[in-house]
Amino acid sequence: MYTLKDVAAHASPKDCWITIKGTVYDVTEFLPQHPGGAETILSYAGADATGAYESIHPPSLLETPQPGFKLLGPLSPSELPTSRNLDLEVKRQPKPPLDTVINAFDFEAIAERTVTPKTWAFYSSAATDLLSMKLNKKAFDQVLFRPRVMRNNKFVDTRTKILGFDTGLPFFIAPTAMQGMINLDGEKAVAKGAGDENVIHIISTNSSHPISDVVSSGKGADQQTHFLQLYVNTDRQKTVQLLANAKACGLKAVFVTVDAHLAGKREADERLKVDVPVKSAVSGAVSHNDKKGGGMGRLMALYVDRTLNWEDIRWIKSVAGGLPIVLKGIQTAVDAKLAVEYGVQGIVLSNHGGRSLDTSPPALYTLLEIHKIYPEVFNSLEVYIDGGIRRGTDIFKALCLGATAVGIGRPYLYALNYGAEGIAHLTQILKDELETTMRMCGVTDLSQVHPGLVNTRKIDALVEDGVGHPYVKWRPKSKI
Amino acid sequence: MYTLKDVAAHASPKDCWITIKGTVYDVTEFLPQHPGGAETILSYAGADATGAYESIHPPSLLETPQPGFKLLGPLSPSELPTSRNLDLEVKRQPKPPLDTVINAFDFEAIAERTVTPKTWAFYSSAATDLLSMKLNKKAFDQVLFRPRVMRNNKFVDTRTKILGFDTGLPFFIAPTAMQGMINLDGEKAVAKGAGDENVIHIISTNSSHPISDVVSSGKGADQQTHFLQLYVNTDRQKTVQLLANAKACGLKAVFVTVDAHLAGKREADERLKVDVPVKSAVSGAVSHNDKKGGGMGRLMALYVDRTLNWEDIRWIKSVAGGLPIVLKGIQTAVDAKLAVEYGVQGIVLSNHGGRSLDTSPPALYTLLEIHKIYPEVFNSLEVYIDGGIRRGTDIFKALCLGATAVGIGRPYLYALNYGAEGIAHLTQILKDELETTMRMCGVTDLSQVHPGLVNTRKIDALVEDGVGHPYVKWRPKSKI
Amino acid sequence: MYTLKDVAAHASPKDCWITIKGTVYDVTEFLPQHPGGAETILSYAGADATGAYESIHPPSLLETPQPGFKLLGPLSPSELPTSRNLDLEVKRQPKPPLDTVINAFDFEAIAERTVTPKTWAFYSSAATDLLSMKLNKKAFDQVLFRPRVMRNNKFVDTRTKILGFDTGLPFFIAPTAMQGMINLDGEKAVAKGAGDENVIHIISTNSSHPISDVVSSGKGADQQTHFLQLYVNTDRQKTVQLLANAKACGLKAVFVTVDAHLAGKREADERLKVDVPVKSAVSGAVSHNDKKGGGMGRLMALYVDRTLNWEDIRWIKSVAGGLPIVLKGIQTAVDAKLAVEYGVQGIVLSNHGGRSLDTSPPALYTLLEIHKIYPEVFNSLEVYIDGGIRRGTDIFKALCLGATAVGIGRPYLYALNYGAEGIAHLTQILKDELETTMRMCGVTDLSQVHPGLVNTRKIDALVEDGVGHPYVKWRPKSKI
Amino acid sequence: MYTLKDVAAHASPKDCWITIKGTVYDVTEFLPQHPGGAETILSYAGADATGAYESIHPPSLLETPQPGFKLLGPLSPSELPTSRNLDLEVKRQPKPPLDTVINAFDFEAIAERTVTPKTWAFYSSAATDLLSMKLNKKAFDQVLFRPRVMRNNKFVDTRTKILGFDTGLPFFIAPTAMQGMINLDGEKAVAKGAGDENVIHIISTNSSHPISDVVSSGKGADQQTHFLQLYVNTDRQKTVQLLANAKACGLKAVFVTVDAHLAGKREADERLKVDVPVKSAVSGAVSHNDKKGGGMGRLMALYVDRTLNWEDIRWIKSVAGGLPIVLKGIQTAVDAKLAVEYGVQGIVLSNHGGRSLDTSPPALYTLLEIHKIYPEVFNSLEVYIDGGIRRGTDIFKALCLGATAVGIGRPYLYALNYGAEGIAHLTQILKDELETTMRMCGVTDLSQVHPGLVNTRKIDALVEDGVGHPYVKWRPKSKI
Repeated sequence: MYTLKDVAAHASPKDCWITIKGTVYDVTEFLPQHPGGAETILSYAGADATGAYESIHPPSLLETPQPGFKLLGPLSPSELPTSRNLDLEVKRQPKPPLDTVINAFDFEAIAERTVTPKTWAFYSSAATDLLSMKLNKKAFDQVLFRPRVMRNNKFVDTRTKILGFDTGLPFFIAPTAMQGMINLDGEKAVAKGAGDENVIHIISTNSSHPISDVVSSGKGADQQTHFLQLYVNTDRQKTVQLLANAKACGLKAVFVTVDAHLAGKREADERLKVDVPVKSAVSGAVSHNDKKGGGMGRLMALYVDRTLNWEDIRWIKSVAGGLPIVLKGIQTAVDAKLAVEYGVQGIVLSNHGGRSLDTSPPALYTLLEIHKIYPEVFNSLEVYIDGGIRRGTDIFKALCLGATAVGIGRPYLYALNYGAEGIAHLTQILKDELETTMRMCGVTDLSQVHPGLVNTRKIDALVEDGVGHPYVKWRPKSKI
Repeated sequence: MYTLKDVAAHASPKDCWITIKGTVYDVTEFLPQHPGGAETILSYAGADATGAYESIHPPSLLETPQPGFKLLGPLSPSELPTSRNLDLEVKRQPKPPLDTVINAFDFEAIAERTVTPKTWAFYSSAATDLLSMKLNKKAFDQVLFRPRVMRNNKFVDTRTKILGFDTGLPFFIAPTAMQGMINLDGEKAVAKGAGDENVIHIISTNSSHPISDVVSSGKGADQQTHFLQLYVNTDRQKTVQLLANAKACGLKAVFVTVDAHLAGKREADERLKVDVPVKSAVSGAVSHNDKKGGGMGRLMALYVDRTLNWEDIRWIKSVAGGLPIVLKGIQTAVDAKLAVEYGVQGIVLSNHGGRSLDTSPPALYTLLEIHKIYPEVFNSLEVYIDGGIRRGTDIFKALCLGATAVGIGRPYLYALNYGAEGIAHLTQILKDELETTMRMCGVTDLSQVHPGLVNTRKIDALVEDGVGHPYVKWRPKSKI
Repeated sequence: MYTLKDVAAHASPKDCWITIKGTVYDVTEFLPQHPGGAETILSYAGADATGAYESIHPPSLLETPQPGFKLLGPLSPSELPTSRNLDLEVKRQPKPPLDTVINAFDFEAIAERTVTPKTWAFYSSAATDLLSMKLNKKAFDQVLFRPRVMRNNKFVDTRTKILGFDTGLPFFIAPTAMQGMINLDGEKAVAKGAGDENVIHIISTNSSHPISDVVSSGKGADQQTHFLQLYVNTDRQKTVQLLANAKACGLKAVFVTVDAHLAGKREADERLKVDVPVKSAVSGAVSHNDKKGGGMGRLMALYVDRTLNWEDIRWIKSVAGGLPIVLKGIQTAVDAKLAVEYGVQGIVLSNHGGRSLDTSPPALYTLLEIHKIYPEVFNSLEVYIDGGIRRGTDIFKALCLGATAVGIGRPYLYALNYGAEGIAHLTQILKDELETTMRMCGVTDLSQVHPGLVNTRKIDALVEDGVGHPYVKWRPKSKI
Repeated sequence: MYTLKDVAAHASPKDCWITIKGTVYDVTEFLPQHPGGAETILSYAGADATGAYESIHPPSLLETPQPGFKLLGPLSPSELPTSRNLDLEVKRQPKPPLDTVINAFDFEAIAERTVTPKTWAFYSSAATDLLSMKLNKKAFDQVLFRPRVMRNNKFVDTRTKILGFDTGLPFFIAPTAMQGMINLDGEKAVAKGAGDENVIHIISTNSSHPISDVVSSGKGADQQTHFLQLYVNTDRQKTVQLLANAKACGLKAVFVTVDAHLAGKREADERLKVDVPVKSAVSGAVSHNDKKGGGMGRLMALYVDRTLNWEDIRWIKSVAGGLPIVLKGIQTAVDAKLAVEYGVQGIVLSNHGGRSLDTSPPALYTLLEIHKIYPEVFNSLEVYIDGGIRRGTDIFKALCLGATAVGIGRPYLYALNYGAEGIAHLTQILKDELETTMRMCGVTDLSQVHPGLVNTRKIDALVEDGVGHPYVKWRPKSKI
């Protein structure tokens, strides 16, 4: 039985105790391993860290022994801190068994009621009125199939290549920041699950774990393909180091994000203040509240270079060690065309999951816009799309319309709630859905897909077919 | 008064007792007659079968004496099993009198609250997000009439022919699996009700009862027309036998299902595990849980031959004994055209009630697509449509647009909740609604219908008019 | 204090007592005056009539002394019938003061909670799924204005002519059956209110009161214009008499209903069985339950001649004594054109308030269809529309699109809940709304309206522009 | 401790006591300063004014000492008036801290639950069925961006000019009546907040405060731009005086409202009767209940000259002392063209926030209509739009489509709930949202916006492209 006074005596980096939920821990040896950085813990050294701890970690984490996180014993009952957020505890519910999860939406619904409010806010939020986020999904729902029947499809094959690299499925796990918020293993668990199921994982610049740890958690760089997502740092030298490290770790391509040099206004994220700073192990970005609110996404983007422009592509190539470059966040046919001219190897049509600019176009509209305006783009680079993809049917539709592959983001974050097993389980679900779709459409391997298998009439009239506006020809004029 | 020990002494095929809801039954003689197969019961021989029984049978069934199902007496109160699913019992409500049922939706609402959860899940579920199922109905609702007035229509006549066979109404009762789940008489009751009202009934390969029993329950093969729905078995010999049997029983046509060589992902069905296997008396298919869930539809489809393709039509014809062949599940104009080329007598435009592939097209879209692309199809075979038809107005719209007849599925399953009387009652309702529609539109017999009586503007722009995509011309290209 | 035995002794047409809500009445002298017919009461002679009474009359009626309806005194408490529908009483609420009613929707909401369930069901119901009823209103909501500003409109004038007769407002009170159900004075109160506000009232063939009583309740035939709505009787001689009587009473035109020779399937009406037959004082139609349900609309239509056709117009003219003939219920441009050819003076584009055939077109669509296909119709007769008109804006839109006037039905039924005062109040509301609309659009009298004041783009694409279907060219073919 | 009798002894303009919520006040010196006029208070002189006070003032007002509003002490408990509207008090909730407000919708939601019901009804209400009000917002939501990426936009500049006057942001605070209802300082607080953030404020003819007070509350006419909104008075001399005063106070332009010479039917406003008249310090308009209801908007418009027409523009110019003239409320391209011909300097495309005529067109439709029909209008005057603008994205869309600036009305009313600080806070929010939008679209200053940055396909088909109706060519005809 310890008193608060006992605890207070251990408040230095060399001897650090904290209390969580009425239990005393010696975390001295854990400090250097903390994914959120040692400073985060040290600000609670010798004191109660319950509130901070609970706002950012999964409730079940304490049940798992962590190396260096030593349980000393209970705090004296009379000493229990009174400010504990009981409401938070009550609301977090236990997770149902993984085998009852049968689709991507199940993972999302479970995350909403089992993860901490801040994690949910950060992952699920999108820009302002959420219109683009909803439109992303709706666009897929409005495309109908034209299924061909009476084809022998006893065997179907979902394998393909992305940038020339083999993959078991025509999608990659899209890069998302701070995966450690939902599961302490974060990107490491994703790498393991992705390796087991043979899908490609893109590691974020804002990864919770160092790239080398992520890669080594899977099958290793020889046996498993990883790509790097890149935010260019205002301190360009840091970007040079990051790219060198990525190359050294065996990453195979660089996806440069071009639609989030600043973060969108994600209001659910802003509204929820955090009690504790969060730090990325890769970029070093740290987020905390400011006067605009507690927007983790916004605060993590502060180091991103807003001067980035087309001419910088030459520089990125020069420091990327020969890795293929892909631009993530293209939203118009004209920028797709520019990407060709600047010689990149691929583009991801994306509105950042609706998180950047509300009423920005769903990637499916941009895909169709390119077909209308610059179809030759498809001959020069690979085109991927992301945003709103939740079903095997969605994946198949994108492929029919010329995408080489798609990116899947939030669903994998929510699946990570179950660790590497969740990652594998979601991948199996999507594979099963994709195979069913292929069979139902009369297709046995992905080289057979073609646009005649889908009916896009419901959205065709919403897609622009020229670079300018069809009839508004206004140009700036002199003022009165 | 019996004890559990007494019951346990009778646990063989030759001497089989079970207990249900605290009552002891000797079911030895009932075993060979059980629509779900003797094995199903035998797995509970000498034991309590309440949970299994209730999950799959209507609550009222025990009140009806079944030949060979002998009531012995009560179980000793101290022996009552404690694991009974009381929740299930509480939720199942009594059925209202049949004369308060005035439309097809009433039957559905009553079924939802009176049948077992598994029966409801199996019958009502559809693929993934239910988009196609909802669109099926919505498509009909969006077609408007252009009613002609001031026509003498004191008398109206709803009779027509399907494949040359007389019918009192321009629709058939679509084939649905395992009709015994909602009413022990299943297909036999359907046959009786259909015979009484002069409509054609299509018997499923997954019928709960043998074809001969079904036919003899009605007016007999001479007085009443039945068709066979066919799933081709991976063991082709079984299909040969089935077709021979169908022919021998007097069935008049074969409807080959081409859109469900595997079942769609019906999540409501998957989520609800069954306690008891269900077996078809015709195909012999047995369903039970597997690691993907309890999807009865998926499990019953395991024997279906996924290699089935256009070239197999020749073989089917060769073993069908001269019966007309109809393909059920055509979803594109180009496959309708192929059906003509392969010489079948009819096609059912269908997305399997939205149960196979979500966002597959409503049959009404496919009907209009054929008019746009290959209108000559209508000169070569009969075209039927199904999916979402709930009203006499829906039937009439399909006929105005060139369908020879329509298929009605789920509504008849729900009507079967009231046995043969329910089948007849629903038929009378639909006939009355159809007659009212005819009178309101100024039509006195079905030879007078024409497309000028309907306005399809709301959906016209959603229908494709070419075989490929209107502007996406992408073709597979070599990878980078 | 009376006993049930006392009451039972007075059970003949010459000496008739009944009990209602525990009070005994001598209704012998009231019998011949009962709007619902003497037989209705006589079926309860010497007995309790509470249930029957309450199902069809407004709760407040007993508070108003009725000539010949003599209160004798209370029933002995021990004799009170136990089967009274207490639920009904509880649900019926008092009406709020008339001056708190500020629009047509208020009258509807008040009626829903203050009139008897059967009256509400009969008035508010529409065909099957209510799609046309909702579409009627939605069509108006989707038309936008193109208001012209900076026009002097200090004074505005809403007067116009209908069939050459002066009216203070460009609409008529549409004919509706059995107005006595909501207010004992029924059509008489309507006539009074209409006369006070200078609008034209169309008296239904199914009027609760004799035409002469209705006319004399207002300003008289010289000072006030009434029209007759006509259902042609299978006994044509009765129609001859009705027309002669209408002419004798001073009615000025005959509106022949052509879209309801049978009533639509109004399910809310069917579901509610009535305890008492209802009888029209004009047509003599009596409604009661049958095996299809309690559909008052359907049952009252049984006498209507279903053989009525275009050739009968000549006969109607021959027996209408020179009154102008208007066809009510035209739903296609081609029938509008036929109306011109058969020489009638006007047509009402109408789908009977959505009560006849569900998914029949809103009148606004038909109005636009005529402009597209046979615009010359507008030069040959007057065109009115009804269905879904609830606001002054709706009236104005119809006029801009070429309607001479509009008909307003249900809103006046609901206003009649407040008697003649309610009729006048609703008329003042609509006049005020219309004047505001005129001023906002820059129009000072109704001769200035024109189609350039409205934007119909939202519905234009839904309107047919040819007599047949735009691309479905199917024609009946020989069967296989 | 005072008695009601004590209070009643002080009931004259020279000696005026009132009681509010059980407290006695001497308000004699406050009378001439009351924004609502002395008469308003005098009608309660010597009596309890709680109900009247609460219906129109913010609950917190009494907590702030008002000069001349002297607290005398409590009323004797036995004398407390019993008619107090407790319900009102209970519903009014405290305002959350301003720093938790992160968008314009937050201000609205807070106002709904914290201001008096009458203030909420007056500010939030719109014409009849609220269709135009909702469509205003929806129109913006349906326009998508076509964001350009990879542009250096480290620095962005939101400054522009309106009528040649500098402004920090491309919008003005639209004129709204009676801003003193939500905050006693009303327009004065708006002027202060607007001055601090460098945006232009338009002062309403129905301002709660005199123009000179408003101007002096900000930075003064030399340092801050104000415009005048003008309703022309039926007594034209009053308008002459008003314009002379506005000019003398340093206002820089006159916005003549042309779409509200009468107020629309705002039913929420009509339904709530006021206990107290409200008076404008500028126009002198006083509102009170009449037999149509308590519509404050309608009653305040009674003095507005309904004869106002295009020819009056010459007169307005002649009395406006050379100030630029802008017409507010243009709703068609043809009136925009007339505005050019009559030589005004600007037009505000507006449907008065949906408050005038329901189903009048959203300003965005009118903006597009001008581009289709008379694009030359944009070369001759400045075009502004208002209605439904709630986000920085909305502002940016309007500018891309050729608007010089936009007007923002209700959001600023709701922000005024927090006084000048609220005005400044909302402005900062909108500026931040606009800057984010500019960066996301690849634009660094407002001279770079162009129509190619937006996709208006979703609404294009709803916009007229000719002055008349596209196919309805009806013209008034002679009657039968």
